[in-house]
Amino acid sequence: MNFRIGVDIGGTNTVIGLVDENGQIVRKESIPTRNKAVFNDYINDIVNSIHSICSNNEKLLGIGVGAPNGNIYKGTIEFAPNLPWKGVLPIKELLSKAFDLPVFITNDANAAAMGEKLFGGAKNMNDFIVITLGTGVGSGIYVNGNIVYGHDGFAGEIGHVITIPNGRKCACGRLGCIEAYASAQGIVTTFRELKKQYPNAAYQGVKEELDTKIIYDLACKGNECAIKAFDETARLLGLTIANSIAYTSPEAVFIFGGISNAADFLLQPLRNYLDEFILPIYKGNVRILRSELKESDVAILGASALVN
Amino acid sequence: MNFRIGVDIGGTNTVIGLVDENGQIVRKESIPTRNKAVFNDYINDIVNSIHSICSNNEKLLGIGVGAPNGNIYKGTIEFAPNLPWKGVLPIKELLSKAFDLPVFITNDANAAAMGEKLFGGAKNMNDFIVITLGTGVGSGIYVNGNIVYGHDGFAGEIGHVITIPNGRKCACGRLGCIEAYASAQGIVTTFRELKKQYPNAAYQGVKEELDTKIIYDLACKGNECAIKAFDETARLLGLTIANSIAYTSPEAVFIFGGISNAADFLLQPLRNYLDEFILPIYKGNVRILRSELKESDVAILGASALVN
Repeated sequence: MNFRIGVDIGGTNTVIGLVDENGQIVRKESIPTRNKAVFNDYINDIVNSIHSICSNNEKLLGIGVGAPNGNIYKGTIEFAPNLPWKGVLPIKELLSKAFDLPVFITNDANAAAMGEKLFGGAKNMNDFIVITLGTGVGSGIYVNGNIVYGHDGFAGEIGHVITIPNGRKCACGRLGCIEAYASAQGIVTTFRELKKQYPNAAYQGVKEELDTKIIYDLACKGNECAIKAFDETARLLGLTIANSIAYTSPEAVFIFGGISNAADFLLQPLRNYLDEFILPIYKGNVRILRSELKESDVAILGASALVN
Repeated sequence: MNFRIGVDIGGTNTVIGLVDENGQIVRKESIPTRNKAVFNDYINDIVNSIHSICSNNEKLLGIGVGAPNGNIYKGTIEFAPNLPWKGVLPIKELLSKAFDLPVFITNDANAAAMGEKLFGGAKNMNDFIVITLGTGVGSGIYVNGNIVYGHDGFAGEIGHVITIPNGRKCACGRLGCIEAYASAQGIVTTFRELKKQYPNAAYQGVKEELDTKIIYDLACKGNECAIKAFDETARLLGLTIANSIAYTSPEAVFIFGGISNAADFLLQPLRNYLDEFILPIYKGNVRILRSELKESDVAILGASALVN
């Protein structure tokens, strides 16, 4: 049997998987993305992980990588706001040197969308969007059965659509991107901003170091501020998705990432806000869905599918 | 020689053209779009125009129509905010009854984009956007060499992207669409709003019934309020185009419509604002261009090209 390597580079963790011909992940390994100051040292960590999960001399067809701002045409990662290394990173060149194998790279969110198309809820769809909520906000857009790469390979950056002109500062340096509101840090910031308005809510479990898990747990306990933080996130995401639909008119928008599990607090309000903001001709024609795939696997599967 | 009919339905005028195999418009006729209260009567006007420009018994291959909210899959015009008839209009069915010919319909801005691709500045481009500025604001999006229709045929409604949340009321009923600012009426409204700030400017030639031509003439004479009205339009268009690029990463954005001729007052500021708002990875990679085709012809040519 032939195998492919799929690498999912996230803002926090990098997961490397060995994928068989049936789309099953045979073995995988996770390493921290931010432990190495020098990019080449981080690549060495990936190389070591690939060796470690391939101990049985499997026949490898190639390596597919999903990474923020990954460029399929040039084989590079370029100016990724959520990675510690700046400028243009020649990841294809470095991995090709370490292995005598074809290497492909694309946007991490494109990889997630390819996973959704090949193995998930988008199997029978030609036009859909996957929005990934995590350290950043990413997206992969399918039009007519194919991923949209654009003329330079950088299409599909919905996270950096300016939803609120002159709004909150984004990691990209500009103001008002949806990522500044709907990323993990964005939700935390919204919760902090709202706290003053809910002085009587019970905040048990709230530490100095807040995260979306803590806010989700508070929401489950009925904390109004936490529920409102998700609602406000849903409102701005709903507006952004309403705008996104006006470009490619997708059949469905998949929400992908740990926070999409907060369905009652995020997805249901999101559907309601979308209904409020959407252009009448699209009303009732677009479904908001949760990714059908295990979050930890989908980008690996999608990235591995880059290898033909 | 074979001929095709191209019909361009605009918010104000409808132009019907007889197009030869070389993309030359042999004859054309313009009729007002808003003269008939009943849609079938308006279709009769189109039918009469087609008969009148085809007096020489040319061999016709078919009729292509570009119209606001024209749907290629269903052959209908649906809920077009800038047309006087409401609901779903079965234009393909009605024209097919009148002529024993294949009839195709798409969005008027898609037709303009097809014209630009076949006969204009986008000949060698696979990824580009055409934005039409007129009674409304429309768009046609090319990805990978093909028009984006979306799953329902309604993709490419950049005019109804909400650029300013809770902003100016749009003809579609929602708040803050770019059409409410960059359409002809939008520019007039911006000019009126700004007038208080420029009490000392000379307003010779300003009548009760303002239009963009009058504002353009004022700008040419150095009227600060008129120059500022174009600048503000350019700022909001620049922001909207910066956002649009994050979806499909086009090589160029073509600005189409009479007002795009106000290059010094609109296009140059637009390029500067785009530079200010654009995500760094796209900077310097996208050109803002004027349509290379005669405005009155491009949508007819594009619409006629729907007929294979």
